[in-house]
Amino acid sequence: MNLSKLATPALVIDADILGSNLATMAKSLPGSRCRPHVKAHKTTSLARRQYEHGHTGFTCATPREVVGMALAGLGDDLLLANETVDVGRLRAMADCEARVTVAVDSDETVDAAAANGIREVLIDVNVGLPRCGCLPEEAGALADLARARGLDVRGVAGYEGHVYQYADRSERTRATEQAMSLLLAAHRDVGGDVISAGATGTYDINTWATEIQAGSYALMDTAFASLVPEFKQALWLEATVISTSSRHAVADCGLKALGMDHGNPSMDAGEVWLVSDEHVTFRPHSTLRVGDHVRVWPAHIDPTVACHERIHVARGEEITDVWDVDLRGW
Amino acid sequence: MNLSKLATPALVIDADILGSNLATMAKSLPGSRCRPHVKAHKTTSLARRQYEHGHTGFTCATPREVVGMALAGLGDDLLLANETVDVGRLRAMADCEARVTVAVDSDETVDAAAANGIREVLIDVNVGLPRCGCLPEEAGALADLARARGLDVRGVAGYEGHVYQYADRSERTRATEQAMSLLLAAHRDVGGDVISAGATGTYDINTWATEIQAGSYALMDTAFASLVPEFKQALWLEATVISTSSRHAVADCGLKALGMDHGNPSMDAGEVWLVSDEHVTFRPHSTLRVGDHVRVWPAHIDPTVACHERIHVARGEEITDVWDVDLRGW
Repeated sequence: MNLSKLATPALVIDADILGSNLATMAKSLPGSRCRPHVKAHKTTSLARRQYEHGHTGFTCATPREVVGMALAGLGDDLLLANETVDVGRLRAMADCEARVTVAVDSDETVDAAAANGIREVLIDVNVGLPRCGCLPEEAGALADLARARGLDVRGVAGYEGHVYQYADRSERTRATEQAMSLLLAAHRDVGGDVISAGATGTYDINTWATEIQAGSYALMDTAFASLVPEFKQALWLEATVISTSSRHAVADCGLKALGMDHGNPSMDAGEVWLVSDEHVTFRPHSTLRVGDHVRVWPAHIDPTVACHERIHVARGEEITDVWDVDLRGW
Repeated sequence: MNLSKLATPALVIDADILGSNLATMAKSLPGSRCRPHVKAHKTTSLARRQYEHGHTGFTCATPREVVGMALAGLGDDLLLANETVDVGRLRAMADCEARVTVAVDSDETVDAAAANGIREVLIDVNVGLPRCGCLPEEAGALADLARARGLDVRGVAGYEGHVYQYADRSERTRATEQAMSLLLAAHRDVGGDVISAGATGTYDINTWATEIQAGSYALMDTAFASLVPEFKQALWLEATVISTSSRHAVADCGLKALGMDHGNPSMDAGEVWLVSDEHVTFRPHSTLRVGDHVRVWPAHIDPTVACHERIHVARGEEITDVWDVDLRGW
C-alpha cells in the first residue's frame, strides 16, 4: 500500500533510515556494549532488528516491557532499569522464560525483589539526576543486603540524564566523567561485572560504563537531533490536511497522537502554530488542498510511540510492514 | 479492592464527585441543551452515565469515537465535530446503527460525506479559533452545495476556544458573544435547528447556541479548575513511591501516563519537580516511605485518559467498578 492511502494519523518508520541508525550504533558499540532501551519504541519487532544487529541484552522501563520481551523470545538478558515493589509484577517477571535483572536502590526494593522470586539485581546509584538511585556511598551496604537476601548482584547502574543541560560537548563530557566517577566509586564497593549507564546522548562520550542503555538512536526525534547528528529521524506521523483557509491549514494529527513534553512537533510543509487534541494548525509554505498528506515530526519519540497501536514501515512511499506497538502500558 | 492494592500508575475516578459534576451540568443545561463531548473521557461507561442524566446526544472528535458509541448503544444522535475525508471511516460511520451527523467546512468534506453514505451534516464555521471551519460568509453557499448533494443540513457548529485567553469572566463573555454573532450570522444563511458550540469553559456564558459541547465538566482538570469552580476534579492518577532520598521522592507515574501539553501535574503529597517517561520526582511535604501511594492530578484530562486502557471507579478507598477506555485511537 502507498503511504498516501494510509488512514491517519499514523506512525511511519523509514526502513532505510532505521537500518542506517541501527548499523551506526552496532559499529560504534557492538554486541553487549549497547543494551538498547525498549522504552523508546515499545515494539518487539523493532527490538528484534536490534537483536539481529548483535545487541542481545535489552533495557526496559516497565515490567510489561520485560514480560513482553520475554514472550517475544528476546529474553537473553533483560534489565528493568527501574524500581518496583509491585508483588504481582515482580512475580510475573520472575516467572518469565528469560534472564531478568532488576534495579534496586533501597532496603524495600531489595526485600521485594528477593521475596518475589527475582534472582539478579543491579544496585541503582544516583549520579546527579534527581530521580531514583541510592547515594554512591550507600551502594556497598545495599549490595551486602541483597547478597544476604540471596540475590546475585551483577553490578551497578546509573543514569547521567542531567548532562543534557550542557549544549557544549566538552561540558557534557566533563559532566559525564564526573557522574561516572560516582558510579565507579560505587562499583568498587559493590563488585560485579556490569556498569550500566548512558543513553543515546552520551553513547560516544561515556567510555566508563561497560554497557550503554541507548534508546532514542533507533528512531530519533527533534529533541535529540542536534546532540547526535549521525543518527537521523526515522519516524514521523503521517497526517491528512482536513481544512484550509487563506492563513492556515489544519491536519488531523493532534496532541493525543504526540508526546508534548518537549513541546510542539515540526513539519516540512509549514510552521506549526497550534496543537490541540486532534489537530495541528500550521502556516503552510505553499498551497495545500484538503486530502493532501503531510509529515509531522515529533519532538519526543518515546511518549509519541506510546500513543499508538501500530507503526507502519515504509521504503520510499510503499508500506512494507506493520509492527504492533506491543509493549504499551505498565 | 482497596485503592492501596491497585497496581500503579492507574486512573481513578471518585464516583461521588463525578456524580455531583454530572448532576450540576444536567441541572444547568438539561437534556439536549448539553451535547457531552466524549473526547474528554473516551469511555462509553461514563457516557452512559451522562445519557442517564438526560443528555442523549453526544459530540465526538474521531470516527472511532462515533463507531464505538454506536456499538455501545449510545447512538441516538452522534455528532462528529470534526472534518474527515477518510473514505473507510466515513463509510463505517454511515453504516452505524445510529444517527450520525458530521461537520463539513469545504467542498471536499461535503463531497466526501455525500459520496460515502453520510446523511446529515452541520456547517462548521470558524468563529475565531485558528482551526477548522469555513468563513461565516461562506456558510450559506456550503449549505447549498450540501443540499445539492442530497445531504440534510441540520444547522451550524462553531467552537469559541479562543476565549480562554481571557481570564476575566466579563471579557470572556464579550468574546463569546462576538464569536456567537458570527455563528448566528452564518446560521441565518444556513438554516436548520442546530446551533452547536461551546465547551465546559463557556457552558453558562454561551446562551446563543442551542446546544453546548461540554466535555471536561465530568472529570475536570487543573487547567480548567479556576474557570468553572462548581465542577470538581474527579480523576487522578494513583501512583506508588518507588524511591526516596533526603531531598526528594519518586513515584511511578511519568509523562507516558499523563497529557503534558498543559504542563506538569500537581500532587497533594508534595511539589512536583521533574516529570520523565515513567517517573515524577517531587519534594514531599512530609516523610514518605517506599510503597506509599500518592495522588497525581493531571493538568489536562483528555490526553491523560487517552494514555490508559481502563479507569477505576472508587467510593472512598474502595474500588467499585472498572471501566474500559474503549474509544481510544482513531
